[in-house]
Amino acid sequence: MLTPASALAAVFEPRRVALVGASDRPGTVGALLWRNLESFPGEVVPVTPSAASVAGRPAYPTLRDVEGEVDLAVVAVPAHAAAGVIRDASAKGVRAAVVISSGFAETGPEGARLQRELLAAARAGGVRIVGPNCLGVQNCDLPLNASLAPGLPGGGGGISLVTQSGAYGMAIYTLGLDERTRFAKVYAAGNKADVGDAELLRYLGSDTASHTLCFFCESLSDGRAFFEEACRVTPHKPVIVTKTGRSPAGARAALSHTAALTGQERLWRAALAQAGVTVARSGLEMLDAARALDTQPPPAGPRVAIITNSGGTGVELTDLLADEGLEVPELSPALQEELRRLLPAYASPRNPVDITPVWGRFTELYPALVDRLARSGEVDAVVPVLLQRAADEAVTRAVRDAAIKLRVDGVPVPVYVCWVASRATRAGADLLQEAGVPCFEWPERTARAIGHAARYGAARTRVRQRPSTPPRPAGLPTMPDGLLDADIAAAVLAAAGIPTVAHRTCATVAEAVAAAEALGYPAVVKVLHPSLPHKSDAGGVRLGLPDADAVAAAARDLLALAPGARVLVQPQAEGTEVVVGGVRDPQFGPTVAVGLGGVLVEVLDDVALALAPLSVAEAHHLITRLRGFAVLRGARGREPADLAALSHLVRAVGDLLAAVPEISELDLNPVLCGRDGCVAADWRIVVRRPR
Amino acid sequence: MLTPASALAAVFEPRRVALVGASDRPGTVGALLWRNLESFPGEVVPVTPSAASVAGRPAYPTLRDVEGEVDLAVVAVPAHAAAGVIRDASAKGVRAAVVISSGFAETGPEGARLQRELLAAARAGGVRIVGPNCLGVQNCDLPLNASLAPGLPGGGGGISLVTQSGAYGMAIYTLGLDERTRFAKVYAAGNKADVGDAELLRYLGSDTASHTLCFFCESLSDGRAFFEEACRVTPHKPVIVTKTGRSPAGARAALSHTAALTGQERLWRAALAQAGVTVARSGLEMLDAARALDTQPPPAGPRVAIITNSGGTGVELTDLLADEGLEVPELSPALQEELRRLLPAYASPRNPVDITPVWGRFTELYPALVDRLARSGEVDAVVPVLLQRAADEAVTRAVRDAAIKLRVDGVPVPVYVCWVASRATRAGADLLQEAGVPCFEWPERTARAIGHAARYGAARTRVRQRPSTPPRPAGLPTMPDGLLDADIAAAVLAAAGIPTVAHRTCATVAEAVAAAEALGYPAVVKVLHPSLPHKSDAGGVRLGLPDADAVAAAARDLLALAPGARVLVQPQAEGTEVVVGGVRDPQFGPTVAVGLGGVLVEVLDDVALALAPLSVAEAHHLITRLRGFAVLRGARGREPADLAALSHLVRAVGDLLAAVPEISELDLNPVLCGRDGCVAADWRIVVRRPR
Repeated sequence: MLTPASALAAVFEPRRVALVGASDRPGTVGALLWRNLESFPGEVVPVTPSAASVAGRPAYPTLRDVEGEVDLAVVAVPAHAAAGVIRDASAKGVRAAVVISSGFAETGPEGARLQRELLAAARAGGVRIVGPNCLGVQNCDLPLNASLAPGLPGGGGGISLVTQSGAYGMAIYTLGLDERTRFAKVYAAGNKADVGDAELLRYLGSDTASHTLCFFCESLSDGRAFFEEACRVTPHKPVIVTKTGRSPAGARAALSHTAALTGQERLWRAALAQAGVTVARSGLEMLDAARALDTQPPPAGPRVAIITNSGGTGVELTDLLADEGLEVPELSPALQEELRRLLPAYASPRNPVDITPVWGRFTELYPALVDRLARSGEVDAVVPVLLQRAADEAVTRAVRDAAIKLRVDGVPVPVYVCWVASRATRAGADLLQEAGVPCFEWPERTARAIGHAARYGAARTRVRQRPSTPPRPAGLPTMPDGLLDADIAAAVLAAAGIPTVAHRTCATVAEAVAAAEALGYPAVVKVLHPSLPHKSDAGGVRLGLPDADAVAAAARDLLALAPGARVLVQPQAEGTEVVVGGVRDPQFGPTVAVGLGGVLVEVLDDVALALAPLSVAEAHHLITRLRGFAVLRGARGREPADLAALSHLVRAVGDLLAAVPEISELDLNPVLCGRDGCVAADWRIVVRRPR
Repeated sequence: MLTPASALAAVFEPRRVALVGASDRPGTVGALLWRNLESFPGEVVPVTPSAASVAGRPAYPTLRDVEGEVDLAVVAVPAHAAAGVIRDASAKGVRAAVVISSGFAETGPEGARLQRELLAAARAGGVRIVGPNCLGVQNCDLPLNASLAPGLPGGGGGISLVTQSGAYGMAIYTLGLDERTRFAKVYAAGNKADVGDAELLRYLGSDTASHTLCFFCESLSDGRAFFEEACRVTPHKPVIVTKTGRSPAGARAALSHTAALTGQERLWRAALAQAGVTVARSGLEMLDAARALDTQPPPAGPRVAIITNSGGTGVELTDLLADEGLEVPELSPALQEELRRLLPAYASPRNPVDITPVWGRFTELYPALVDRLARSGEVDAVVPVLLQRAADEAVTRAVRDAAIKLRVDGVPVPVYVCWVASRATRAGADLLQEAGVPCFEWPERTARAIGHAARYGAARTRVRQRPSTPPRPAGLPTMPDGLLDADIAAAVLAAAGIPTVAHRTCATVAEAVAAAEALGYPAVVKVLHPSLPHKSDAGGVRLGLPDADAVAAAARDLLALAPGARVLVQPQAEGTEVVVGGVRDPQFGPTVAVGLGGVLVEVLDDVALALAPLSVAEAHHLITRLRGFAVLRGARGREPADLAALSHLVRAVGDLLAAVPEISELDLNPVLCGRDGCVAADWRIVVRRPR
């Protein structure tokens, strides 16, 4: 199982572990860690200068003194001594260290200095660091509990949890224990001085024991790398992220207690969505989504069947599923007729299938309906609601067996149980969860978890078709640094396959008039001058000029706006105004933004973002996510826009930014979208070569 | 305690109860109800034709045969026999009957017939009916358990629950029992054949034992009456409504199992919001909001202090509170300095106040911080997070005592506990809840409940200032039925104090030119003809006409659009386009709608609704709720609109609809809002007198 290539294999699957700072003294961290490591099947070597033995085992004063190989050092020494321990680890050939000790960057400038020293020692010696200031690491299957947490979560499950917050991470898996959730690996990241999130994601993505990856964090390190890794993982395994510090106050709170800056929230959300990552708002929501995804196939579509013994609960769950974008479709007449024969009088076979409170028949009806509906081809998920008297052991066992049979038979329709009953009956819910049938208390947790599962089912298909980086376009002109000249910029766009409205740049009134005569009326005249990059704001745009006189007058005015100004002359084009832009972000690299012109983008900030390159399908999906998308689809008698052409244009903008690293900004504002095709009517490109 | 005026007093506080259909036979509904009624301190009289005695008590064959007075009949007989029982009740002078029996409108046409028969008997005999097809009624304090539910919820609390769904209602109070929630009264409404929701709201609104009113329902009867009642109640008591069947599929599901149509969702939401009703999406959310509101004063503002032993949890809770529109403000430097002296090193006094995991000091720090922050004047609510080791009994008792002391001292700042710990420690949470300190598991339930409490705190102040119905305006012209003539409509608006753009109606081109000369250029010419009510769609509007020639040409075209057409001539006005409308709804009466012109209202359907009459403050609040409100505030260099003038105009529209019942529709589209004032540029009024 040990992959020599990865230091994280040494962290999660060591053969021999040294505990530096081991102790016999009750109440010390060294003693707690020693006790927690006791379940490890391999050898644990105590290292401490202050005792000759720990728990009857001979202790070594330093790591250098240990005989035989050590894969992993668990370090619990004062912060000022940690760098020395890492130097010893390096000398000993230890590949990785879990630094539990706190007193580093989280405490202020002096701690930050100690952390830099620790990291320098690690880098110099080739030792990889988990933490510092972390709760530790657990492999529930091995088992290995190299952490401060007493006891291990139940192993044998596929959920692996990476948590930046130690205390909250422990609370999350305590909840997991309460609800019989099984884990594979738990990793408390602490200050993340060395090993980053993308590296962890890569490791867990290829770890055969981890099927469902959860990240609870205030910051994620290295946006682009995490995105790329996630795009590789999500087609095969769900990745669920809860990134707190989303709100300004939350971000301030995050800063006050960890050493990491929270990322640019909006770009993060776009990147995670594009990579098919499930984004949860809280730890509880994350764990619920993980339970829904870990043991059942994700729904292949939005159609849900509900089986209930309480009409009111069925209605509430239907509403909550609709809030998640899911459907509770009426069943076909044939299936309703078939169910009607099975059900008592006054029951409803429409969906929700309402059994009514026929207590005596629950044990027979619930499993029969679960089986029949899952195999009907009419729904993508089945949700039995076990409410009050239906939440008893016989019904629960029967539902469990029906769900297991569906998995055995390879029926690709998941079963989720909605549990609404007194806590005293909780053992029944545990029975389901232990058998891999996700069971959620109350309709809202149920609906939310199913919503995540269904969105993951849809997203992983999209992510499978991620494009690779495109080649540099042929025929690019020479591009000096700074804001490109309009003609050069148009040539760049032409090389990238992005259409622009016909135009001529003119230095005199006569040239402008000649250009308008050639290009046609009504004409548009715009000022061109490096000091006036925002032409409209400078009063430098004249639209709808009907004839040569009007063009001459406009050109005269605009040429006078600045010494050396020129004008751009175009025929006036028609269409729905769309804004397409590209920016090279320091953390995420090339990104693309799309919005609708006018009040939607200006006031409602209705802009959708994606990382480039992106496929045409991704570009189309991006456009459909705009709140004002209905405008493009042709709402209320409007002309529908050519979405295929717009999607290709957005893709082309992304490709250009991805392939030509010296382009730092690109703005097409507006792009005019008509029924056939779309075209950029104004454009700006800024070139900035890295120094 | 018995209010003779109200039949509901007989339902909730009877002195003597008759159980019709009482039985000794185990497993029958009659036996179950008999057992449940045993705790009633008054006398329960068994009525049944099939036994001489029940539980050793002599049974009467019918209600008519009972000796002595009966206040309440609980009826559990077959549906076809129920009307006869009600006739007996009438003869006996019984004022109210809880009809548990099912088999009525919920089952189909034959059941609907039986329900009509039941209701006719009740109306004829002056007997009020609860149900039929209901779980029954409970008064937890008396106690009275006139229901199928075994056992009563804990009494002595202020929460009263009205539930249309019997089974889900039981589940809700089972959760209440699990979480030590105390109730006053529980009412399962069933088919609501007689007693309506507004009547219930009126009764519970004046019931001294009920402090917090919860309605869980698929339909609410009589929109206007419920709204008016709610406006009277919410300034004094919170009213929380969960109305399911919100989504189309949910509404279909609701229809399949009850006999009630779900209401017009959008108008319901507007009415409930305006009446200061707390709207929850689910039964669980409703009960959480009720717990937050029942024993603590609502927050007077949005500022929340968090005390936590886990930074990560504090950050998550901060985000979730921000999602609810609340703030976690940084504390003042002076207060931070004071707290810093109290706290351990590395702790953060900023807010969230992060104690860090100093276990030994939790029992001292948590209550001290709760007390200090609640009295600081810097926050409107205090939330201690009791996570893992902080969720022990000593800390819990200390926090409880601190919270109780604040209530005793009259400090108007509520305390809510966020509980994040293993279920095994649940007893601690119960300790808090039993002492009236609301305790919520996990940050999301906590934040959501506080959000509801804070919104209620703000809304009840607004609702206190509801206006009364205005008088009919003086100087109204004679209004024939149908679409009013433009001049008459303008006179109506003038009488109501609603400004319109200067205008003249003209029958000839010459009149139009003369009008434009008098009113000024640029001019606007619009067609007027009863067959062309939507002028723009008919090509009947010409804007920006610069001179007499243009006006003449436009008038000539438009006068030719229909035989007998006239034109309206106006000077062109400027301003942000707003749409203001009024409609008389069959269920809610006069209503007002406001939206922003253009893409926002047309494509995003960005319209806010309210019931008329409304105050200027309510009108202003309505306008601020528009998604595009920033446009009116003057976003991105736009001219800010005169919000005071617009609010007055919206109020005036509402007053007009409320005071003049023959106006069935009114449209001001557009209203042009400038920096100083606003004015209707086009208007339509439809008059329809009830026949």
